[in-house]
Amino acid sequence: MVVKNVMNMNPGDGATSYANNSGLQKAVMSEALPLVDETLEAMFSAENGFHAKCLKLVDLGCSSGPNTLFIISHILNTIEDLCSKRNNSTDHHHLPEFEVFLNDLPDNDFNNLFKLLLNSNVINGKKKRHCFLYGLPGSFYCRLFPSNTLHFAYSCYSLHWLSQVPEGIESRNKENICIARTSSPEVFEAYAKQYQRDFSTFLSLRGEEMIVGGRMVLIFRGRSVEDPSRIDDSAHITLLSQTLLDMVDEELVKKEDLYSFNIPLYAPREQEVKTVIETEGSFHLDKLQGFRVRWDAHDNVVDDDENNIILKIHRCGKLVADCVRAFMEPMLAAHFGSSIVDELFGRYAKKVEEHFSMKKSTYFVIVISLSRKGK
Amino acid sequence: MVVKNVMNMNPGDGATSYANNSGLQKAVMSEALPLVDETLEAMFSAENGFHAKCLKLVDLGCSSGPNTLFIISHILNTIEDLCSKRNNSTDHHHLPEFEVFLNDLPDNDFNNLFKLLLNSNVINGKKKRHCFLYGLPGSFYCRLFPSNTLHFAYSCYSLHWLSQVPEGIESRNKENICIARTSSPEVFEAYAKQYQRDFSTFLSLRGEEMIVGGRMVLIFRGRSVEDPSRIDDSAHITLLSQTLLDMVDEELVKKEDLYSFNIPLYAPREQEVKTVIETEGSFHLDKLQGFRVRWDAHDNVVDDDENNIILKIHRCGKLVADCVRAFMEPMLAAHFGSSIVDELFGRYAKKVEEHFSMKKSTYFVIVISLSRKGK
Repeated sequence: MVVKNVMNMNPGDGATSYANNSGLQKAVMSEALPLVDETLEAMFSAENGFHAKCLKLVDLGCSSGPNTLFIISHILNTIEDLCSKRNNSTDHHHLPEFEVFLNDLPDNDFNNLFKLLLNSNVINGKKKRHCFLYGLPGSFYCRLFPSNTLHFAYSCYSLHWLSQVPEGIESRNKENICIARTSSPEVFEAYAKQYQRDFSTFLSLRGEEMIVGGRMVLIFRGRSVEDPSRIDDSAHITLLSQTLLDMVDEELVKKEDLYSFNIPLYAPREQEVKTVIETEGSFHLDKLQGFRVRWDAHDNVVDDDENNIILKIHRCGKLVADCVRAFMEPMLAAHFGSSIVDELFGRYAKKVEEHFSMKKSTYFVIVISLSRKGK
Repeated sequence: MVVKNVMNMNPGDGATSYANNSGLQKAVMSEALPLVDETLEAMFSAENGFHAKCLKLVDLGCSSGPNTLFIISHILNTIEDLCSKRNNSTDHHHLPEFEVFLNDLPDNDFNNLFKLLLNSNVINGKKKRHCFLYGLPGSFYCRLFPSNTLHFAYSCYSLHWLSQVPEGIESRNKENICIARTSSPEVFEAYAKQYQRDFSTFLSLRGEEMIVGGRMVLIFRGRSVEDPSRIDDSAHITLLSQTLLDMVDEELVKKEDLYSFNIPLYAPREQEVKTVIETEGSFHLDKLQGFRVRWDAHDNVVDDDENNIILKIHRCGKLVADCVRAFMEPMLAAHFGSSIVDELFGRYAKKVEEHFSMKKSTYFVIVISLSRKGK
């Protein structure tokens, strides 16, 4: 499977679009904001902080939706406030110019993203900033920028996507579609190796592009335990493979199609992340944090009424299914055909609902702050 | 009318798309290529030519289609050949890195453009170049880049589009939709002033963005005579307003809708172009050329058989109508509603056919090469 061509989020701004079903990612982003601020403060507040006339920033795997505008706005406002404080002046002539690159795979819905930008005040901002925004179509496992030009990189909830499904695992993983309790050790190892290769490539490429002292804040799915068979941090994926298996039993999906389907997703342990960073060597790990977010973190409706618990669980099933559909549909449709998607996610919502009635599940998230070492 | 929201070409890659109906623009581009080559040669062949490690290039008003890839490929290959010759080496380590920005209004079909790029070899090229491509959504009548960073700008068949319809002309221009023989002198003057303002703004903005010695090659519609009433260089637009008038007579279009419709298009004389460049002052005009292209320049089928002339004229009517539709449809649909568009261009094709049976019409095109003066 060529990941580049199917690894995009649902386009547009309709009911099943990523733009309208990315509340979970917003919740994750909000949890990680303090480390973003801390990193920017280290870059721009000290006397020896950056004084570049023009700053080059990138959101890697930005997708298309309001989250992109939110984080870019936040970063620009924070830098401007820090520079104003440092210069002891609110005059915008003292502020740097900004080049902001919005990166995602070429099939990302850039048209929708650019329309959102047009209707936002990101470009002008409160201080009449000079901010130039560009779309950057391409995989972050390839070079994206000229050498020694990038100042700050940000990536939220994208780096757990591998560059490809590890080679040779298809038939070995049977009805599983990712690492699961019943996956063989070989499958687990293939995924882990692919992750090490990919994350190392990622660091090495950003190392070439980034100026010395440049920073990155990276947020991605992680795993809180060593043994993947002891606890299933990817229960939402397991529930999806179970739904597909039900459809195989009812002959709605071909068994060989399920057996040949695996998704390029990997949630590393903290120690794995540290090891790759140290071994690759371009970056210094300034900080690493782990936290948990509820699957339904983006459901802000409070139900005090006990009688509404069933209703709430039902709503959460739909909410989680919509969220998973927004990032999985293109991949599933490419492999199984788009005709199964409605049925699949209808069933999946019910399965999540059953799961929720027994257990409040969470994702484990890792956020790291890195700085480019001297060359 | 806010030009930014409707002044885009027909999206996608279907029958009425700009991507499939931009053969005329390709013909214009081909005529102008020698001046592009000459300009690049002046930049990169001499000992005192550019030696930047990374070159920043832009296609202003790139639209979405194969023409964009063609010209970018051509420019990159030419620069690489010139640099190789200068360095007396074909080793790609001696070549600069490239940042190529593809600019158009935010409603341009960037998704389609990025898909085309993915399937082309522009990025890698024959010499394994380091080329980074970005989408740049925004009007070229606004700032697009940080100060003093741009090396080369190219624009083909875009700069005759004004930033807006000149204010206050709507009711004065009656059934005309642009400058025409029956337009009043006030209308003509309003268009000319808007052009002077817009082109001057364009030069001043590019002047801020471009490094000293940076170059531009600009190709746009022009007018070969002083008096716009003596000869109609915009007969294709007049035929369109006549078609709309026929539809008003048949009550298919409201008279007030036609009377309030004007398009932001202006074809300047050579002297007007020179005057704005001199008055604005940021650029030196290295060369100006004018040439004519046939309306059906993109019809490469040769009919030796005399009997086929009628068939050929019919085909040309359709060809020209498709071409005009590709760049006019969004603007017409926004004003008159999309329901009239099929009928309008069916009738328009017949009108062009009648016109062609009497006369072989041409467009007058101006191409200029400019260099950024010292500051």
